[in-house]
Amino acid sequence: MTTFPHEEAVELVGALRELIATVRVVDAPIEVLSAARRLIDDARAVLDPHRYVGQVAQGALEGEGIGLRTPFVGTPNEFFPYSPIVGPLNPVAPPVRMWADDALRVHGAVTLEAPYNGPPGLVHGGVLALIFDELLGACAVVNQCPGFTGTLTVKYLRGTPIRTPLTMEAWIDRVDGRKTFVSGELRNGAIVTATATGIFISVDHQIVKQ
Amino acid sequence: MTTFPHEEAVELVGALRELIATVRVVDAPIEVLSAARRLIDDARAVLDPHRYVGQVAQGALEGEGIGLRTPFVGTPNEFFPYSPIVGPLNPVAPPVRMWADDALRVHGAVTLEAPYNGPPGLVHGGVLALIFDELLGACAVVNQCPGFTGTLTVKYLRGTPIRTPLTMEAWIDRVDGRKTFVSGELRNGAIVTATATGIFISVDHQIVKQ
Repeated sequence: MTTFPHEEAVELVGALRELIATVRVVDAPIEVLSAARRLIDDARAVLDPHRYVGQVAQGALEGEGIGLRTPFVGTPNEFFPYSPIVGPLNPVAPPVRMWADDALRVHGAVTLEAPYNGPPGLVHGGVLALIFDELLGACAVVNQCPGFTGTLTVKYLRGTPIRTPLTMEAWIDRVDGRKTFVSGELRNGAIVTATATGIFISVDHQIVKQ
Repeated sequence: MTTFPHEEAVELVGALRELIATVRVVDAPIEVLSAARRLIDDARAVLDPHRYVGQVAQGALEGEGIGLRTPFVGTPNEFFPYSPIVGPLNPVAPPVRMWADDALRVHGAVTLEAPYNGPPGLVHGGVLALIFDELLGACAVVNQCPGFTGTLTVKYLRGTPIRTPLTMEAWIDRVDGRKTFVSGELRNGAIVTATATGIFISVDHQIVKQ
């Protein structure tokens, strides 16, 4: 069992997220860009000798977290610490906060900043699909039906604003053999802006062929 | 018409992408994390006074690029410089390279590194949905049918490996009034690992209601 990542690593990634958001909206003279770039290169040089090696590498480097065959414990944020959606240790993750309720529905909350922008003022449609895959997949995991996404369908009902608190919820529709059918919706306040359905294929009969 | 971003900005964002990829796989002592964090905070402090302001802000800050009503010119990478998928100026974008051929099909190429990892060794399914939304949407734009995503469906046929050159292609199936139907596929070598269909709604009758 992996423990939740230590505070300093989470804070480092949080600081990097703030840098990412700033760079996304910057318009600076060349000498300022060069100065920032030197600091960024220096930060990388400090960290480069400390990439994962050995046995630990396979789990942490190759997967988003603790592994599909491990019983689910904690929240999706804790269970998938490297996820590109919920992972506190992944700088490209917003990250979306997710948790399950007593009925094993999965809820989420996020405010998406400029890096996730698509049309003016709105979240990029692809980013909502990215989030839905994780939300619905996490719901399958929480309900002891972890699996690979087979099909994901997202319907966009209206624009979803950036820089606005959003909430989301997912639930199991039914389980049919190796297939788990999950639905979810994303809300801006009381208004549903997008819905999704997903079919997840259980890992005991996994569809991965490489 | 916006010109392609100047080289130094693209290089700064490229350096930041390398830092992101390193942080994603780092396992360092606290003092190393603290040293890196100070450099990251310093870089942000250098850039903070140079966020977009005024009139320029609306286009650059609020949208992924040049605007849906501007005639398409160049490549998707040039037309959407801030896109979270193809934007050279967006640090969370891989970025995917995209271009159109003479038949107005859109092609893409990318190698996805650790930040986009899902199950061990494989790209996160949500990341593929993120990419498909941009690929199919860009195909609609290139064919003079720009619009908001109405529905996106992704089918996952087998695992898509990380750290492997991937290619993709999208084409118009048909245009029916304000709806443009687009399909696409993603390939690892000759093997199709995922397919997608999308319905895009033209912006002259946009579905956005806020």
